Amino acid sequence: MIETADALRTRPATDALQHIETPALLLDGDKLERNCRAMRERLGRHSVAIRPHVKTAKCVEVAQCALGAPDGPLTVSTLREAEYFADHGFKDILYAVGMVPHKMPRVAALAKRGVAMSVIVDSVEAARAHVAAASKEGVPIPALIEIDSDGHRAGIRPDEPRLFDVAQALGPLLGGVMTHAGASYNCANTEEIAAMATQEREAAVLAARVLRQRGHPAVAVSVGSTPTATFGRSFDGVTEVRAGVYVFQDLVMAGLGVCGVGDIALSVLATVIGHQREKNWLITDGGWMALSRDRGTARQKVDQGYGIVCDAAGKPIDGLVVSDANQEHGIVSRRDGGALDFARFPIGSRVRVLPNHACATAAQFPEYHVLRESLAPAVWERFSGW
Amino acid sequence: MIETADALRTRPATDALQHIETPALLLDGDKLERNCRAMRERLGRHSVAIRPHVKTAKCVEVAQCALGAPDGPLTVSTLREAEYFADHGFKDILYAVGMVPHKMPRVAALAKRGVAMSVIVDSVEAARAHVAAASKEGVPIPALIEIDSDGHRAGIRPDEPRLFDVAQALGPLLGGVMTHAGASYNCANTEEIAAMATQEREAAVLAARVLRQRGHPAVAVSVGSTPTATFGRSFDGVTEVRAGVYVFQDLVMAGLGVCGVGDIALSVLATVIGHQREKNWLITDGGWMALSRDRGTARQKVDQGYGIVCDAAGKPIDGLVVSDANQEHGIVSRRDGGALDFARFPIGSRVRVLPNHACATAAQFPEYHVLRESLAPAVWERFSGW
Repeated sequence: MIETADALRTRPATDALQHIETPALLLDGDKLERNCRAMRERLGRHSVAIRPHVKTAKCVEVAQCALGAPDGPLTVSTLREAEYFADHGFKDILYAVGMVPHKMPRVAALAKRGVAMSVIVDSVEAARAHVAAASKEGVPIPALIEIDSDGHRAGIRPDEPRLFDVAQALGPLLGGVMTHAGASYNCANTEEIAAMATQEREAAVLAARVLRQRGHPAVAVSVGSTPTATFGRSFDGVTEVRAGVYVFQDLVMAGLGVCGVGDIALSVLATVIGHQREKNWLITDGGWMALSRDRGTARQKVDQGYGIVCDAAGKPIDGLVVSDANQEHGIVSRRDGGALDFARFPIGSRVRVLPNHACATAAQFPEYHVLRESLAPAVWERFSGW
Repeated sequence: MIETADALRTRPATDALQHIETPALLLDGDKLERNCRAMRERLGRHSVAIRPHVKTAKCVEVAQCALGAPDGPLTVSTLREAEYFADHGFKDILYAVGMVPHKMPRVAALAKRGVAMSVIVDSVEAARAHVAAASKEGVPIPALIEIDSDGHRAGIRPDEPRLFDVAQALGPLLGGVMTHAGASYNCANTEEIAAMATQEREAAVLAARVLRQRGHPAVAVSVGSTPTATFGRSFDGVTEVRAGVYVFQDLVMAGLGVCGVGDIALSVLATVIGHQREKNWLITDGGWMALSRDRGTARQKVDQGYGIVCDAAGKPIDGLVVSDANQEHGIVSRRDGGALDFARFPIGSRVRVLPNHACATAAQFPEYHVLRESLAPAVWERFSGW
């Protein structure tokens, strides 16, 4: 039998899969590299810095790939992330979840180790508490004011008078402004995302401008989400862009038009453990504990269930999805309910599942099994917790 | 100010909370003990053994509480669970997810250490593969045939002729039959659950009887789920009951009528990090990474969002739920959209959230912070992975 070029290329990777216990988290290192390079190049063309959000990957090697460098500025969502990356040599970290005083000792400990830490606040109460806590620890940690650019979560609208009160309360600790257009995840098309990017940018730039007009040096103007970073047409006035999920991409991003299904670098390797022939179901050992309970595509045009099912080489199998999941069982069926070719999926054979939401799925695993075309398979550690 | 008895009783626990970093997983040890004792006593009255499912807790102390003994028979959903509990002295473990040959070396290693391992299969293909793999390893691991009692997932219906083929393929390794009425989670009321329990029991007992009539010694007749274990009226012919979530209970169980909200032993401690006054939202640091993405109450009569919000003492605050969640942000609002008393929730104050699904929420954490009325707070380790 003559093997096709395609089969030859994917063979080393699929051979390696036979030795991995399931369920397992696979990372296509070549797709990761392409996704990271594309974002760096895009933002480079706009002459704006990138501060990747490492909440998605929680992995040193992935963060370095995102930066294209051994270290650089990072965004984190937990202090565990900050500590882990500091332990691995990263020295400029924004903790982008509203700061509260009891977390200051951990932030201060990082600052005293030489990490340029910054935090965010969105109220006078939090700003005063931050200033008091920073003073108590003797570390001048700057705080960015969180701006609400889309009404979806936290922040102060740029036209609210209390913006000045918060700046006043921060005094010399005012580090700038930041916003996150999380509503970009609900856009209907890429035009809407581009408009949301404009809205996100304008909110942050306006807030910085009015603060500067009142004598407050809003140095950092930080914006970002993967959709707005991908489709934003201008970053004028912005100093840095935060985005995270683009490194892996996922089905939610594909549903938004941010990427193609073929760009998704992350998948869950699972074993076929049963056949329900009358129902046309495969049962696998990849349940929601592996895939996560995230059903982010449920509200998109195409509901991908708990994920698109691919063959061991990572190629989607037409119409096959994880239609339901229990804790350690995945139920695989055709989207149209049609007949399955059970002979193609013997008990013990492997499938791969593309996830709805990379952040949620990756969080279920302690490590990435990294597959690359020209390099040996590797295992990259990831961590969890707070 | 005179403190009420209630305030005095809960004070030590709430004081301890001030020193716990958030988000954190709290376990009310007294409720745990009550839930475990109630199930042991109930099944004791029916003279049927309990084989608790440790996939929920993944914690030695909780398993011992469930058994009311230092060790005893367990059900697991992963081989990591089997290995962890074997390391802690448990010697009778049923791996209750369809067995595949590549997992045999790990099962055999446990058997060679003296653990009475058993597994499950639901096809001739899997049975033959199991017999071959067990023979290769030189360990006579019994396999129970999984019976489909409700059409919700895996198994063979008790009236299918291939039941005999599977028994034949297993030969002397046939250990019995097992079934799980997962459909009990979708029942509308406790009457329906009781009917489902009858259906579950009858399917397993019938399968065992027809196998015995054909000369196959189906020794174990194993059934169970928390709802059917709670409302089953008879366990005649059943040798053991498997159930897991009852140890903690959760909002899905409360929605089913299996428990009251006051019986839920598990909660997530979170800190208020922001106020969105115009929207009547609190923002907390308990997002879906802490609560899990499980929205199990979404299809019940009362949708509890991402969980019911309680005060630091664990008492539900009327009408308050986590109405939405991002990775590290919870959005708390009144169920009726009404006005919040923000003065009650200053920045930095703590709330507790009762989870939709204990198995999913507990899985997000590496440990339980255990609060008990008459004992000092403790930390119990839990584990994850496969």
